[in-house]
Formats: sequence, C-alpha cells, structure tokens
Amino acid sequence: MAGEFALIEHLLRQTRGIQTPWPPILGPGDDCALINPSSADLSWAVTTDMLVSGVHFLDSDNPRDLGWKTLAVNISDLAAMGAIPRYVTLAAAISTQDALEHGWIDAFFAGFVDCLSAFDVALIGGDTTRGPRIFSVTAMGEVRSGEALRRCGAQADDDIWISGNPGYAALGLHAKLKGTVLPEDIATIADNALHRPQPRVALGRELIGIAHSAIDVSDGLLQDLGHIANASGLQGILAESQLPACPAGVDKWLWNPCLLGGGDDYELLFTAPPNARDSIDLLSQRLSLPLTRIGRMWPLQTPCDASTILANPVQLLNDTNQPIDLSGFCPGFDHFA
Amino acid sequence: MAGEFALIEHLLRQTRGIQTPWPPILGPGDDCALINPSSADLSWAVTTDMLVSGVHFLDSDNPRDLGWKTLAVNISDLAAMGAIPRYVTLAAAISTQDALEHGWIDAFFAGFVDCLSAFDVALIGGDTTRGPRIFSVTAMGEVRSGEALRRCGAQADDDIWISGNPGYAALGLHAKLKGTVLPEDIATIADNALHRPQPRVALGRELIGIAHSAIDVSDGLLQDLGHIANASGLQGILAESQLPACPAGVDKWLWNPCLLGGGDDYELLFTAPPNARDSIDLLSQRLSLPLTRIGRMWPLQTPCDASTILANPVQLLNDTNQPIDLSGFCPGFDHFA
Repeated sequence: MAGEFALIEHLLRQTRGIQTPWPPILGPGDDCALINPSSADLSWAVTTDMLVSGVHFLDSDNPRDLGWKTLAVNISDLAAMGAIPRYVTLAAAISTQDALEHGWIDAFFAGFVDCLSAFDVALIGGDTTRGPRIFSVTAMGEVRSGEALRRCGAQADDDIWISGNPGYAALGLHAKLKGTVLPEDIATIADNALHRPQPRVALGRELIGIAHSAIDVSDGLLQDLGHIANASGLQGILAESQLPACPAGVDKWLWNPCLLGGGDDYELLFTAPPNARDSIDLLSQRLSLPLTRIGRMWPLQTPCDASTILANPVQLLNDTNQPIDLSGFCPGFDHFA
Repeated sequence: MAGEFALIEHLLRQTRGIQTPWPPILGPGDDCALINPSSADLSWAVTTDMLVSGVHFLDSDNPRDLGWKTLAVNISDLAAMGAIPRYVTLAAAISTQDALEHGWIDAFFAGFVDCLSAFDVALIGGDTTRGPRIFSVTAMGEVRSGEALRRCGAQADDDIWISGNPGYAALGLHAKLKGTVLPEDIATIADNALHRPQPRVALGRELIGIAHSAIDVSDGLLQDLGHIANASGLQGILAESQLPACPAGVDKWLWNPCLLGGGDDYELLFTAPPNARDSIDLLSQRLSLPLTRIGRMWPLQTPCDASTILANPVQLLNDTNQPIDLSGFCPGFDHFA
C-alpha cells in the first residue's frame, strides 16, 4: 500500500457495488462532494460522532464489528430524529502500520460498508491521516423539519417508551472488561448489543406523527430521559414494575446499573400520548421489535413528596409509588469523568 | 469544568453572538441539527478534514491560530468548489486535563469562532471526547451543482493560475522546524501563511463562469496540479519564468521545494481559457489578491521530447522550453509517507 491516495482508492473500491436510492451528484475525489435532497420539502438532519481507541473501543476488538458500530452510532442519531439516512463522510486517523499492512483497516472498512449497505447510505467523502486509531463520522439524513422527532416535544401525561432490550450492551461491556460469566444465551445477546448495535431507523420513521419526543440511548437510560425531561420542561417518572425484567441468571445488582445507567444500546427512548398505545403495540408487532412502556412524563411539580430528590428531572418509583434513591447509580457516560 | 456537557455548553456560549445570514432550523443540543438550503436551486458541497497533534500541528503551536486553521482548511475546500460556506460540525478529542483546565481549548475555540465569524458560518453540531488532541470538521456550503468548480473541468490550452503567494506556508514550516533564519518581513508573511491561512471564498465565488477547474493547494502545487491534470485527462505545463519569484534573502534551493512541493498554502490553483485573462486581471485588482498565470494545460501528447518524463502529468519548462527534472522534488504531502 503506497501512501494515502492508494489507501483511499483501495478502500473506496469496496463501496462501488453499493446501490443507493439517491446517489450523490458528485462522490469522493474532488475538493467536496455535491448532494441534492430527494425532495424539495425535506430538510437535512446532520450529526457527528467520534470514536477513539481506548475510550470507545479497544484495539483488540473485532475491527469489522467496530467498522459497523462507527457508522451505526451516527445512523442512530438520524433514527432518533425520524430521518432517512442518506450520506456520510468518514475521517480516519490510523497508524502507518495500519496503512501499510491494511488487514485491520480492511476489516474495519468492511464492517463500515456492511452498515452502509444495510441502510442504503452513500459514503460521499472523507479524510485519512496518520495518528492513533480515531474515526469521525458525519451523517446526513432527510426529514420534514416540522415532523422531526425532537427532545423538547414531550408533553405532560405522555407515556415513556423504550425500544428493544436496553441494558444488554452495558452487560456485554461489563462481562468483557470484568470477565463476569453470563448465561450463554444472554452472553450472545449482550455481545451483539455491544458490538453490532442496530440503529432503529424504521422505528424512527414510523414514530413520526405518533411520538412527541425521541432520543437514542447512548449515554444511559436515566441520563437520556433526563435530556428529554429538561428539554421539555417536565419530569420523567419511571415505574420500577414496568421496566424490562432482569434476565434469568444475571445478578440484579449488576443488571440495574446496566439497564438504567449503561449507554451504548442505541435503542430509541420516546414519549407518546396515552391514546397512541394501540398504535405503538401494533407497530411493535409489525417491526418485530419490543416496545415497552416504562413510565410517564409529569409536570415539574413532583408527584411524590420526597423533597430531597425534587431537583432530579428523572425519578423511579417502586410498587408503592415511593421514589427510589438513584444517587448511587452511574449517571451515564461522560467522556471526561 | 465538570464533564463533557458542561464543556460543550461553555464552548457554545462563545458562538451565540455570531449572526449568520442563514441560521439553522435547529442548532446544537438535539440528536441532529436541522438545516434547509437558502434557495431550492442550490446543492450542498460537503467536505471533511481531520487535524492530528504531531502530524498537522504541534502541541506547542498557538492554540488560537490552530482553531482558526482547523476550520479554515475545510472552508478552503468549499472555496475551491465555488461554494458559499454555511454550516460546520466539529468533533474534538482532547485530554482530560484540557477539559478540566480548559485554557488551551478555550483559546483553540476562540480561534475557531474567529473563523466562523469571518466567513458567516454556523456551528450546528459536534462531539467531544477524551483522547489525544484531534479535531475533525465537516463543512457544508451551497453552490449550483452545474456551476461548481471541479478538478475534472480543465481544457487543453487553458491557462494555469495560482492565487496569493504560494510557498510561504512551507517556508514558515521549514523555518519553524529547522530554525532557518528568514528576513523579518518574509518571516512574518510565512508565519501568517502557515498559521492563519485565508480560504479564498470570494475568489472561488467569482471564478464561477470564468474558471474551467479549480483545487486548493493543500498537498503542494505540483501534486495538486497533478490532480487537475489527471482528472481532466491533460498535462499541466508550468513555465519556470512565470512562477512567483524567490523572495529576496531566501535561498533558491530552499524556496523552490517550498513553492512547488509545499502544501498548506490553501491558495486556489485554477485553469481558465486565454480569453479570460483580462477578467482575471480585473478580478485580481478588485479582490486585492495576486492572481498569477504560471502555465498552460496541454493534451496528454507532451509538448517536449523528453520521453523519460512523459508519464508525469505535470512538467516544468525552463526558458528554452526544456523540461526540468522534478524527480528530486518533494511530491507533496502524504500522511503515510
């Protein structure tokens, strides 16, 4: 592999077979890519995420999984707005050895291409440079701006819903880092959740007109619900009895922090009015995706009398409607904590 | 500074005073930003660049200059397409110490904001994470797609032009790294060229309808002319006598590699038909920006008989029209060389 331009050309060959429904006017190879919307009444949703070796992944991780995840976490942000993913750019810092031997970067890029193909997304540009393994993706999708699912749209009395099986990615990370042995079937689900997260693009699209607000759970369920609550000027009240049950064979003291504080699941957390329950149950069947009602949005006036936790935008109530002290829980992922 | 969200909020406060002519529908703070074009007949030009500590800059560099340059190099790519810069995202990996003390990142971001303000660009999103100092920007601008200045548009007999004073950034880098003493006035120009490059946005806009092709000189004049030549299926023939003269007091053996092989100037290299010379001279006066005609595009059949260098898409001819051997020159910047 003779240098930067040869590496780029080598990688781009892997993308040539991908058919996207709305190819760019001009793809990689000039100073800029050129793109048009598929319809003049759509706005662009734009998001960016950076993944750093030693922070978001380990050099020992499977590079093909990592390539998938690098793109998937960005597509998940588009899904959380209800947008259709269209275009992405990829900036990559890799070592000179990665560039010369290119086994690792080939596998990484194969996983990235897996995800491009799975979501009909076109890679329109990028940058490669020497450095520690760091990847930065910017993803662009289309949505009618007035219909986009925002964090600030939750209303009092909205139900709080979560998609899929939250908590498993954190469980998988815990098992990986601490060596905790999980039941085999649980370990498989957890490993997939951690390494091959599935952006909920179809769900996000379907929630337009149904949900009042949405966010993807990347920092942790409590923290991301807090983002919705704060942006909407409300409280999010979770009911312990409605939360997804602890998987059989997993310690409850391990599970609860994974469920409530673990990020990295990329499930959609959304709020919707109670009269949408039937539609959401039907949607769950149609998408073959669990959609679980876990709580309710309240006005800032707290529904319980535990004045010490009034300031918390998110509360968890036990079976007798008493607030559970969440101060011991991991507050979600902070890259500088 | 208590963590990632506080840091982001702290930095974003610096951007609140910037008035942009076309603010986003939704800026930072949700899963995605939302943007619309300023006019339905415009396409988006999209580019991304990553700057890495130890590769593109030194930790001892002035952080405010670095913040400027991090954005400027991306805006330069938009300028090279003739696009109007509109929106950018910034992904930043910085150390925990940078996040806690935030003197360095404050200065960096102040320089970034300088450049946002100078070019009426809105920061619409981003990401911060822990890591070595690495910055990745994606910039979006608007241009009519049929009018965009592409690399592939050069035609035989086009003149080759360069803006500004190419070579000074490389001269400044050489002086910085090797300690070479330059005449004081030259040192100032070189230092500015290296640390505060000026994206040629106004020039790019004005070249629409005049130039057949354009590129910004980031990899080196010879290499970037090679990109135009290859993309257009032509040769670029430079005339030694027309090249910008060696600055007084600078060794010619130092200057020539800086001029021909040095990147980082972010001047526009463009081709235009001979009948555009008067327009371009007038444009140079109007913009108070030197525009220098340095050569001509030829069909692939070489105009000289030096068969050994036929393969080179770029040639430099001396006063007697003999090709100068360029094999000893730095071929331009390769991040993995």
